[in-house]
Amino acid sequence: MAKHPKKALSKHAKKARAGATADDDTTITALKLPPAPLSPDMAAYFAKCEEKLGFVPNVLKAYAFDMTKLSAFVAMYNDLMLAPSGLSKLEREMIAVAVSAHNRCYYCLVAHGAAVRQLSGDPPLGDLMVMNYRAARLPKRERAMLDFAVKLTAEQWLVEEEDRARLRAAGFSDRDIWDIAAVAGFFNMTNRVASATDMRPNSVYHQQSR
Amino acid sequence: MAKHPKKALSKHAKKARAGATADDDTTITALKLPPAPLSPDMAAYFAKCEEKLGFVPNVLKAYAFDMTKLSAFVAMYNDLMLAPSGLSKLEREMIAVAVSAHNRCYYCLVAHGAAVRQLSGDPPLGDLMVMNYRAARLPKRERAMLDFAVKLTAEQWLVEEEDRARLRAAGFSDRDIWDIAAVAGFFNMTNRVASATDMRPNSVYHQQSR
Amino acid sequence: MAKHPKKALSKHAKKARAGATADDDTTITALKLPPAPLSPDMAAYFAKCEEKLGFVPNVLKAYAFDMTKLSAFVAMYNDLMLAPSGLSKLEREMIAVAVSAHNRCYYCLVAHGAAVRQLSGDPPLGDLMVMNYRAARLPKRERAMLDFAVKLTAEQWLVEEEDRARLRAAGFSDRDIWDIAAVAGFFNMTNRVASATDMRPNSVYHQQSR
Amino acid sequence: MAKHPKKALSKHAKKARAGATADDDTTITALKLPPAPLSPDMAAYFAKCEEKLGFVPNVLKAYAFDMTKLSAFVAMYNDLMLAPSGLSKLEREMIAVAVSAHNRCYYCLVAHGAAVRQLSGDPPLGDLMVMNYRAARLPKRERAMLDFAVKLTAEQWLVEEEDRARLRAAGFSDRDIWDIAAVAGFFNMTNRVASATDMRPNSVYHQQSR
Amino acid sequence: MAKHPKKALSKHAKKARAGATADDDTTITALKLPPAPLSPDMAAYFAKCEEKLGFVPNVLKAYAFDMTKLSAFVAMYNDLMLAPSGLSKLEREMIAVAVSAHNRCYYCLVAHGAAVRQLSGDPPLGDLMVMNYRAARLPKRERAMLDFAVKLTAEQWLVEEEDRARLRAAGFSDRDIWDIAAVAGFFNMTNRVASATDMRPNSVYHQQSR
Amino acid sequence: MAKHPKKALSKHAKKARAGATADDDTTITALKLPPAPLSPDMAAYFAKCEEKLGFVPNVLKAYAFDMTKLSAFVAMYNDLMLAPSGLSKLEREMIAVAVSAHNRCYYCLVAHGAAVRQLSGDPPLGDLMVMNYRAARLPKRERAMLDFAVKLTAEQWLVEEEDRARLRAAGFSDRDIWDIAAVAGFFNMTNRVASATDMRPNSVYHQQSR
Repeated sequence: MAKHPKKALSKHAKKARAGATADDDTTITALKLPPAPLSPDMAAYFAKCEEKLGFVPNVLKAYAFDMTKLSAFVAMYNDLMLAPSGLSKLEREMIAVAVSAHNRCYYCLVAHGAAVRQLSGDPPLGDLMVMNYRAARLPKRERAMLDFAVKLTAEQWLVEEEDRARLRAAGFSDRDIWDIAAVAGFFNMTNRVASATDMRPNSVYHQQSR
Repeated sequence: MAKHPKKALSKHAKKARAGATADDDTTITALKLPPAPLSPDMAAYFAKCEEKLGFVPNVLKAYAFDMTKLSAFVAMYNDLMLAPSGLSKLEREMIAVAVSAHNRCYYCLVAHGAAVRQLSGDPPLGDLMVMNYRAARLPKRERAMLDFAVKLTAEQWLVEEEDRARLRAAGFSDRDIWDIAAVAGFFNMTNRVASATDMRPNSVYHQQSR
Repeated sequence: MAKHPKKALSKHAKKARAGATADDDTTITALKLPPAPLSPDMAAYFAKCEEKLGFVPNVLKAYAFDMTKLSAFVAMYNDLMLAPSGLSKLEREMIAVAVSAHNRCYYCLVAHGAAVRQLSGDPPLGDLMVMNYRAARLPKRERAMLDFAVKLTAEQWLVEEEDRARLRAAGFSDRDIWDIAAVAGFFNMTNRVASATDMRPNSVYHQQSR
Repeated sequence: MAKHPKKALSKHAKKARAGATADDDTTITALKLPPAPLSPDMAAYFAKCEEKLGFVPNVLKAYAFDMTKLSAFVAMYNDLMLAPSGLSKLEREMIAVAVSAHNRCYYCLVAHGAAVRQLSGDPPLGDLMVMNYRAARLPKRERAMLDFAVKLTAEQWLVEEEDRARLRAAGFSDRDIWDIAAVAGFFNMTNRVASATDMRPNSVYHQQSR
Repeated sequence: MAKHPKKALSKHAKKARAGATADDDTTITALKLPPAPLSPDMAAYFAKCEEKLGFVPNVLKAYAFDMTKLSAFVAMYNDLMLAPSGLSKLEREMIAVAVSAHNRCYYCLVAHGAAVRQLSGDPPLGDLMVMNYRAARLPKRERAMLDFAVKLTAEQWLVEEEDRARLRAAGFSDRDIWDIAAVAGFFNMTNRVASATDMRPNSVYHQQSR
Repeated sequence: MAKHPKKALSKHAKKARAGATADDDTTITALKLPPAPLSPDMAAYFAKCEEKLGFVPNVLKAYAFDMTKLSAFVAMYNDLMLAPSGLSKLEREMIAVAVSAHNRCYYCLVAHGAAVRQLSGDPPLGDLMVMNYRAARLPKRERAMLDFAVKLTAEQWLVEEEDRARLRAAGFSDRDIWDIAAVAGFFNMTNRVASATDMRPNSVYHQQSR
């Protein structure tokens, strides 16, 4: 419904924007916090990221001004997102993106939207989580999980026993409920750290698993 | 920051979701409205879409149950988005996406997010418009334009002379202000028609210009 | 419960406000957009307005700086509000006012509030639509229609299949649902064009059908 | 822009609505609270209303199930709205309507919208207060007054010294600030009593001072 | 989970804040309104406060610049909070605090939070009303009462017959419904007068009934 | 202004509520997650809590079903709240309470409200943070810090460079900005875990440092 000529972008506009909107992988946050020397553990972890992902996610570089903070972040992240759980890794990433969409967090939507595309093998699912998870045609279990996570994000003061009851009715155990809450909570934290510091995602995420 | 094994998606989950979240290009809306015979004008327009885009955008098929409605929609759309204006085509598409992001309209974000990527030649710009336009590092002119469009979308009752004054200070003429308002208004209309009918975008948009 | 003496308005206040709050039928919007010559079609349409209504609605004069825009607006308006539909003309005007009340759009509330008074022969119904449609004692059909239109206006991202199901349960066909969405969408557009440009209603509306 | 034929209202719809939306001056609230015998003071006050206004406002009849409550309400209302103050009676009524518009209180909008029309001799001013006071072209003093009253209504937790400073800059004394707050507060009370009980205005208000 | 050393507060910070955050019982509001001579009735009432409470509540001193306003306030307050009613005094105070918590009114939360602690003999109940009444494990009757009062405070335009029906189902009479509405309405008034004037509570409330 | 007789609480109401609203120090969350054996590190940490505080905070018991989660939480908490920082411990606790007040989190308001009272030696300051931090008369530095933390909590998508600039103008370094964001983010996480699981605070907090 649109004939978008390649030349529509005026040279003026292009120049004004050049190198500006694109994530350039050099300036990671708006704060000047020089990196500390990596501890042996964290050096090994960064090397593993390079090996497995091909890059170190910018959030890790952002925390690398202080090894205690970086280690605490990595420990909590890896436990929540990668350790055994009644929630699949994809489900945990879906929560991450639905929460980040409510909070309109650019960094987390780019990075975890890519994770949903990759883990699901279903690229439009990533877009749906970013744009409006309610428009996705999800199994009841996943819908209940995301409804809880987003209500907890938007209006946590209204969450009560009947919300937990709905999760149990959808097949979640008490441990699963903890995990849904903990993942939703975690992204309510990282979303805010990212927005507060204008954290920019690695540019490679944009094209991943499209 | 994550080792996403390809097998993370359980077979169970995959089955439950198969053919569900993906846009399948057959069911366009949740309403059963059989298409009317295309008028000669509209037949020609659909043919032109096929020729130039390779497909007919689903929104046109959704309106095709009634030729008067389809023609009126096409006339207004083409005037607003493609006719000469002080706003570039890219700027008009940026308004479309920023408005649709506020309204969390899946159809319009997919279709017009693709247009921003294509017209700008800057795929991350499309993601920024979808996720949070305030995180984009935009020229002042474009930022003022989007601030006006989104305020008009979110809290139109607060728009006053000082909002128009800000646009004038950013270099917009009175005619440009009309066009910003008209494009923002138009997507506040189509966003709602799309959400009300659960309109699904052509699946081809997802990969366009990535 | 109040003795309002005629002289309560101080001369000072009266002077400061004179010719200011009242709609004066000369300045139609805050934008300087000189009218274009009317096309023959539009000249005929304006003449018909004068004949039937006694005046040309200001929204038409506001669009008259560009014949393409004016024609597109008129075509869409007349199809939506006046063409055959499962919704009565009054029902369509009730949607117009309930949507405009959510958006607090002065122009549309004045003009379409008058239409509700006229079409219903029930002046308080016009006030109820302007003030709070939930306080009106409406037939279930009309209440369901307005609930859908206002939810679509206020929180379109929450509209789902169960909202359409409620309309079907109230007797609306799929075509009717389209029309409710299209009318609600249309006023979400025109409300914004009116607020963005500070459009002022013809003063004659205020007294109509009281 | 609209040919509203008198016969647009289907007989069916008319029947369903007959005697329903119109205020009928018999059922005043949704609560069954039989009137108590009027005390001599209150009997005299009701008689004065009949004499001066031609009717007893329904809010007084609603409180008349208990003479202590009725007397307390009348004492506070008459002091706030009619006693000497740095605010004119019209200004106090404008606050009443702008507050009631935020709260979408049908009773108070009908009754006090009529008072604004009457006291100002400017019927569109009444409509502006009901629909969106920001669209009125008010003297700075009145605009500052209404901005304070509506912020206090909508987000009282944000009111701080700089808000009071804005009132002082617009010429209001500390006593005037008290009166603005007290009138805005009072209508935040009565709006809620009216909505909680579905209080209906006397039908005569609708046509007053049009 | 925290070792809070007594010396954590830097001298600098302490000095900057000294005599500032603490309520000092001398400056009652931000408005300079010199007290009027107490009328005999009000002098007797103040003396009774001193005798029974040990102090005169600051809200009374705030109103004491005008005997008519003070008397009207006292008459309405005493009728609503202390006169016979189907609601216990504790229930009325619980409404006061839940409403004031929504409105985040410092004065009313301090003064009426103390009243809930005292009347209930259950100090955590006072904190629950201040912090989030939904976290309290209340009898159904009290929960229904507070849900109604808070909905009426937050979104009064949505209150309808089904809300009243829920109160009736919880055992409330029509007179009780009036009283719930009137108490909730009253604190929506006083909350706003207190916030508008930066009213400060008597410091003695903080320690009462802990 | 209030005669609160000790007997106002009816026996019926007292019984219905007995042992219900009070925090009873046995049921910590609504989830059944049996505690795991404490690791040596965590056993030592719990012992230190007992020694220094006289009790183990319930949040630690809530996490104790899994030693990895408990350790990660403790590591992050202790770094954020107790390690050296440009923010005093009191300032970090003030952020904790202001964020928790926005989110209306009962657990965190009780536990960290007590910490503010203790660290400041100014009990009303604790109440102000819980009720409305804007009503506190704070040094500019602390006000800027809380404004940033609460905006980040309420509308993180609006946080931009000018918000960071305001912190810098108030004397905060880039490292301080990180710490403000990290503490605000952390409580946005724990608030949600607490609300999602109905976590109850140790009853001892209520009386601490009053």
